[in-house]
Amino acid sequence: MAVYTEVSDDDLARFLERYDIGTLQSFKGIAEGVENTNYVVHTTAGTFILTLYEKRVATDDLPFFLGLMEHLQQHGVSCPLPVRDNEGRQLNELCGRTAALITFIEGFCVKRPKPVHCAEAGRGLARLHLAGEGFKISRKNALGPTDWRPLFEHFEKDADSISGNLRAQIESELDWLEDIWPTGLPTGVIHADMFPDNVFFLGEELSGVIDFYFACNDFLAYDLAICLNAWCFEDDYSFNVTKGRAMLSGYEEIRKLSASERLAMPVLCRGAAMRFLLTRCYDWLNTPEGAIVKPHDPVVYLRRLRFHQRVDTIADYGLHD
Amino acid sequence: MAVYTEVSDDDLARFLERYDIGTLQSFKGIAEGVENTNYVVHTTAGTFILTLYEKRVATDDLPFFLGLMEHLQQHGVSCPLPVRDNEGRQLNELCGRTAALITFIEGFCVKRPKPVHCAEAGRGLARLHLAGEGFKISRKNALGPTDWRPLFEHFEKDADSISGNLRAQIESELDWLEDIWPTGLPTGVIHADMFPDNVFFLGEELSGVIDFYFACNDFLAYDLAICLNAWCFEDDYSFNVTKGRAMLSGYEEIRKLSASERLAMPVLCRGAAMRFLLTRCYDWLNTPEGAIVKPHDPVVYLRRLRFHQRVDTIADYGLHD
Repeated sequence: MAVYTEVSDDDLARFLERYDIGTLQSFKGIAEGVENTNYVVHTTAGTFILTLYEKRVATDDLPFFLGLMEHLQQHGVSCPLPVRDNEGRQLNELCGRTAALITFIEGFCVKRPKPVHCAEAGRGLARLHLAGEGFKISRKNALGPTDWRPLFEHFEKDADSISGNLRAQIESELDWLEDIWPTGLPTGVIHADMFPDNVFFLGEELSGVIDFYFACNDFLAYDLAICLNAWCFEDDYSFNVTKGRAMLSGYEEIRKLSASERLAMPVLCRGAAMRFLLTRCYDWLNTPEGAIVKPHDPVVYLRRLRFHQRVDTIADYGLHD
Repeated sequence: MAVYTEVSDDDLARFLERYDIGTLQSFKGIAEGVENTNYVVHTTAGTFILTLYEKRVATDDLPFFLGLMEHLQQHGVSCPLPVRDNEGRQLNELCGRTAALITFIEGFCVKRPKPVHCAEAGRGLARLHLAGEGFKISRKNALGPTDWRPLFEHFEKDADSISGNLRAQIESELDWLEDIWPTGLPTGVIHADMFPDNVFFLGEELSGVIDFYFACNDFLAYDLAICLNAWCFEDDYSFNVTKGRAMLSGYEEIRKLSASERLAMPVLCRGAAMRFLLTRCYDWLNTPEGAIVKPHDPVVYLRRLRFHQRVDTIADYGLHD
């Protein structure tokens, strides 16, 4: 949520000479992105987002993320398009940082999604899954089931300071998940972080999906489980089955879930809740006081996990045959 | 440099209903403004800046600042225009803050102004001075000569921690300035903070002046002295007389300086250097470590003050008859 690297007019003008995108009209640092510096750039050719990848961000995966955005955009997904420079490069250097220029997407995220937004998000996710087919690069999920226990071990001794008995609860859930985690479900490119703040709307219509920096190859249905967690719970921790039904039906309008995916949904939802519970616990315990970016409350995901533990079938999420 | 107040899509949509500026397309919090929260807002009618005045900002003067921007804009100055709502109001409430919507100005500030930019800034300042005539509201300069000593007294005991002997240097300079400060120079509305980061250019042409939150009524030539300080020194503390000449000549193309203004310029420059030396010292000593906004180095203005102390006439700044 900050501009870590200040770019001067001279730096930017020199950088833009590499691109065929008109003349610079204005640029403003924006308070978006937890780990990178972002500017909104107006040129005579349109509006763009300039991202400078800060030094602590691993740049090895950038060709995957940017290549994926280009692939998806070319296959009909509304997402930012990385602009290639006059030599065909998506990445350049600016102020000692790796930098990329992407097209600006109009629209804004919805703080309190309604069922109609959940349906659109479901359709958008399914479109993304279909469009991802044929993308040539692959990337392992760095926060998949095998990464959960090592992550937990980083903070398990402090876990109970977040919530009483949290350590034991995570431990037994991890044991269970490791035993029961499905194999053989349809895989492909997943967004892996399609929270409401990464989906833009204009009115009730989805106008774009952003932030592909967790995208990877994994079970497609796991991506949907992440979205059920992120979109369909209320502030009082209750699951809104109307939103769940909207999201699942929206998804199935574009891509039908297989029988095994339907069967696995409760487990996948528990896994998705675990993944965000773990990273939020870690961030909660490792964010210095007074940091610019306030960590998210992990307890939200503990409560969601508990809901999923009582779920029997995908019908409990709102999907009936 | 931060978004202190987060505005949701619902909040903003409700707020925009008061205005006749089309439909919301997107909004992004920008890292500008030390004390306020700012968003760039795209609507179907254009681009705007939304400012939320944070609670520690005195809102009593806002009608002066916003009224002045409107007056100047209507009299040919390129500056943001506060948008009036359907009931004619420039100020409304949003998320518990007083908020205003102003037009977006294309252009960007120049980190290293060239003489051509200094000439444009001089012309722009003179235009602003002429356009300010007839503006009905007035505002006392809250950082004028009579405010300097009380401000100094807030930190004088710590002054020498900034630079050896600083306390005595400020004290004797204040004695001198209080004795010699001119009276009877032409007065009017001044910007009072027209630093390079408050002036936008497109190419070599001034496209807009922003940030009127220090504007007040004072000697017009004092405003020019502030600009000579802010635009015409190099990083090595030397005065660039080519830039000084460009700025003064540019100013005089639009508004001739009187004989008394010319005579007073060295004193006014010393006063302007003192004003920024004092506020920078105060901020330097009162900014908590790790604050988002890093304070400016006060020593820069001590060095500029020393230059002015050796100046005899306005010719030393580059202006000859």
